[in-house]
Amino acid sequence: MFEIAELGHTVSKTDYNEKVPTLRTQLLTIQQQLSAYNFSVIILISGVDGGGKGDVINLLNEWLDPRYMRTNAYDSPSDEELERPKFWRFWRTMPAKGTIGIYVGSWYSAPIALRVHNDITDTDLQLQLTQIKQLEQELADDGTLIIKCWLHLKKEQQKKRLKLLEKNPETAWQVTERDKKHLKMYDDFASVAETVLKETSSTQNPWRIIDGSDIRYSSLTVGQHVLDKIKAHIETHELIQSMPQPTQSPQIIHGNQPKILDSLDLSLELDKKVYNEQLNFYQGKLNKLARLAHQKKISSILVFEGWDAGGKGGAIRRLTHALDARNYQVISIAAPTDEERVQHYLWRFWRHMPRAGRITIYDRSWYGRVLVERVEGFAREQEWTRAYSEITNLEEALTDHGIVLLKFWLHIDPDEQLHRFKQREQISYKQHKITEEDYRNRDKWDEYSLAVNDMVARTSSQTTPWTLVEANNKRFARIKVIKTYCEALEKSLD
Amino acid sequence: MFEIAELGHTVSKTDYNEKVPTLRTQLLTIQQQLSAYNFSVIILISGVDGGGKGDVINLLNEWLDPRYMRTNAYDSPSDEELERPKFWRFWRTMPAKGTIGIYVGSWYSAPIALRVHNDITDTDLQLQLTQIKQLEQELADDGTLIIKCWLHLKKEQQKKRLKLLEKNPETAWQVTERDKKHLKMYDDFASVAETVLKETSSTQNPWRIIDGSDIRYSSLTVGQHVLDKIKAHIETHELIQSMPQPTQSPQIIHGNQPKILDSLDLSLELDKKVYNEQLNFYQGKLNKLARLAHQKKISSILVFEGWDAGGKGGAIRRLTHALDARNYQVISIAAPTDEERVQHYLWRFWRHMPRAGRITIYDRSWYGRVLVERVEGFAREQEWTRAYSEITNLEEALTDHGIVLLKFWLHIDPDEQLHRFKQREQISYKQHKITEEDYRNRDKWDEYSLAVNDMVARTSSQTTPWTLVEANNKRFARIKVIKTYCEALEKSLD
Repeated sequence: MFEIAELGHTVSKTDYNEKVPTLRTQLLTIQQQLSAYNFSVIILISGVDGGGKGDVINLLNEWLDPRYMRTNAYDSPSDEELERPKFWRFWRTMPAKGTIGIYVGSWYSAPIALRVHNDITDTDLQLQLTQIKQLEQELADDGTLIIKCWLHLKKEQQKKRLKLLEKNPETAWQVTERDKKHLKMYDDFASVAETVLKETSSTQNPWRIIDGSDIRYSSLTVGQHVLDKIKAHIETHELIQSMPQPTQSPQIIHGNQPKILDSLDLSLELDKKVYNEQLNFYQGKLNKLARLAHQKKISSILVFEGWDAGGKGGAIRRLTHALDARNYQVISIAAPTDEERVQHYLWRFWRHMPRAGRITIYDRSWYGRVLVERVEGFAREQEWTRAYSEITNLEEALTDHGIVLLKFWLHIDPDEQLHRFKQREQISYKQHKITEEDYRNRDKWDEYSLAVNDMVARTSSQTTPWTLVEANNKRFARIKVIKTYCEALEKSLD
Repeated sequence: MFEIAELGHTVSKTDYNEKVPTLRTQLLTIQQQLSAYNFSVIILISGVDGGGKGDVINLLNEWLDPRYMRTNAYDSPSDEELERPKFWRFWRTMPAKGTIGIYVGSWYSAPIALRVHNDITDTDLQLQLTQIKQLEQELADDGTLIIKCWLHLKKEQQKKRLKLLEKNPETAWQVTERDKKHLKMYDDFASVAETVLKETSSTQNPWRIIDGSDIRYSSLTVGQHVLDKIKAHIETHELIQSMPQPTQSPQIIHGNQPKILDSLDLSLELDKKVYNEQLNFYQGKLNKLARLAHQKKISSILVFEGWDAGGKGGAIRRLTHALDARNYQVISIAAPTDEERVQHYLWRFWRHMPRAGRITIYDRSWYGRVLVERVEGFAREQEWTRAYSEITNLEEALTDHGIVLLKFWLHIDPDEQLHRFKQREQISYKQHKITEEDYRNRDKWDEYSLAVNDMVARTSSQTTPWTLVEANNKRFARIKVIKTYCEALEKSLD
């Protein structure tokens, strides 16, 4: 597949000097246009050592307007990065909509290097590529334009280039021991690269292979490619925007689906005495387990969802009572900030991923996408329907990293909810919790029920199960929550 | 000074259980009020080991609403934190306005521990305390309420408490080797603590010393103290808000001040040939020096300020041409995002501080406070006048950390500016750079001149000098910028 990039393309200095000003003007102009659109651009520059990645990146930086662009170099991960799932470092530096992020050493570097050095098997590589494809697909679904450039060199060229670089004291530093090792492994490298490129080239996110033997040629080609891709993307984007949107997404009726929630026995309860005993017991147990988990650097993520007034806050408070405040944080999900609004909807959750041995508790979570955003029409149908797999992928990344992930749905019935609303209105410091909106949401109980059922059905798996909590009785619910977390920690500490 | 906290205050269980619900309601109510105000609250919980810091913090977390509050535990710094000035870790987690941040192990932990273990001298300690006082003053000036609680124990009490904790298998883990060492050093610790508390207690940011011998007493006292302080702060805040503001801050005329900028020789220029030679030479030199600096983990911060159309962008591009795009980032300062708006004005600059061996280039910077914000009246007089020392403190923190800091003012005269405006209007991809506002700003040339002169006079020091760049001739300016950076790197590599 690299043949086309081995033809030895060159551009003369005169030609180059003639073409650059026009290209630069066009790039700056398109960048200005881009800043008005709500999608971001990710440019990956990869390729063989000596293929001129550094030069191309430096030129792009020179040509583009730094106000709407940022270059991220991912060399060895920092300890803060190592403590989180592997894609965290890419999420934390994701470009905002309307801007460009150039990625040097992207998510492709590690899997290729690992496979070339035989540190992972072909099967591992395939798995990693699947995860990469999922990530790219999710970004593309969100409108992100991913431009992937591969700078290629023939074996003899690479040899020559590295020798040339090494001979010149000005550039010798660019040739590392790793490069020399890679040179020896050229064939292995080329074969792994070929697999990776083939596997991860899709119509939406294709690779562009570029002859890296002449810097002028490769820079101009990358620059032109970036320009063309952004232009085309803007056109498609406008086309999509101008298409008539259904005013209301059609309600999908899953007539035959068993209603999971209906099977919950909401009459379950604990009397005060038993509750106090069990609370004491399980809080003590949790305290010990959490301390152990902290020592062993096992992190936890606890997701709390449930009906309004379902008792999330109270359950969280009883749970955190047993924890050391230095090790957990409660993230309450409300309206996104403007920095969050110009990112993929999962970005705001990625930013709070716990460090090793810590706990993040989400009071409402990414499930908002398939609950409130679905029911209220804040997300389009295609957005919330694809969210199920996006969420599944996210949660797999978390559990793969060894994080203990628990998801609680606190379930009450409409009568109990009304009762609690009325109660809250009587308590001064809880009055603010009750608004007109809460009453309006009650009218959509059936729609929300449907959404919850779908959510549980589609996002509960062996490794990421939902814990459905019978919460008409607060005492019963709180104990179930703490006990469930205890059991999960015990399992992970085994 | 600890006598008052050695009286052995206690609260009975009955009393405690009676008082907590009221206190909690009041805390939740004040927290809701607080969320509407544009100041933040920082609660520092410090004190002797075994003084119950952990218990108090856990209770505060239980009592307060997690939506408007966050607990930050500063144990050993991560590598990303170690690579930046020491206060960076506190800035990165600063609470937003309207919210509370509880700090466990704050900026006081390190200096106290270091002094007790004789790792720093009294003089060092004093210096660190001065920096702390400056930080607290700056936060307080911005409206931040800092509540500092010190939990105290008598020597015998500490001994008893630690023994008690150690005896109980449930709590033995809380007693670390460090604690036991500290116990032996109780007298040293008490004496250092006394110095620190005395030195850093001001009318605005006083310490509250609390008897830590009884958890119920100390928790209630801290809770009540937090409540009272926030209440009082809201009242003061409202009072200040309701005071009549002068519609226009009076223009200060520094009649006798020598005009530093007027002494610049704007006729300085370079012809094209010399420029090309020197550009080549200095870019080559810079490339080598920057590489060395990267290897030696020396970071740089370059600040670019100057008149509109002064040539900042062009100078930055010629400079970055010599750098590896993987190691630098250009931060263009435009309108703050809403996450930035709810923070101290320096916060948005702290977030971009470079990691070890990297370079951050600010295209406009914190100097906006004493330039555009002063002239356009976006900052009140008291705000921009105190900014000089805030900026000086910031820059000292940077240079103390070993960062190479350079500040460039690109100076042109009004005629040259007009000429460039007209030119820009002719170039398609530069047209967007020229707006009505640019012409309006020209009318305020004299006011801006005054502001620039004041800025240079007040913020240029031996360690943080301004480089005034004669920029009527772009070629001359660019060479001067690159050359200056070369010299600074050479000096730091010596």
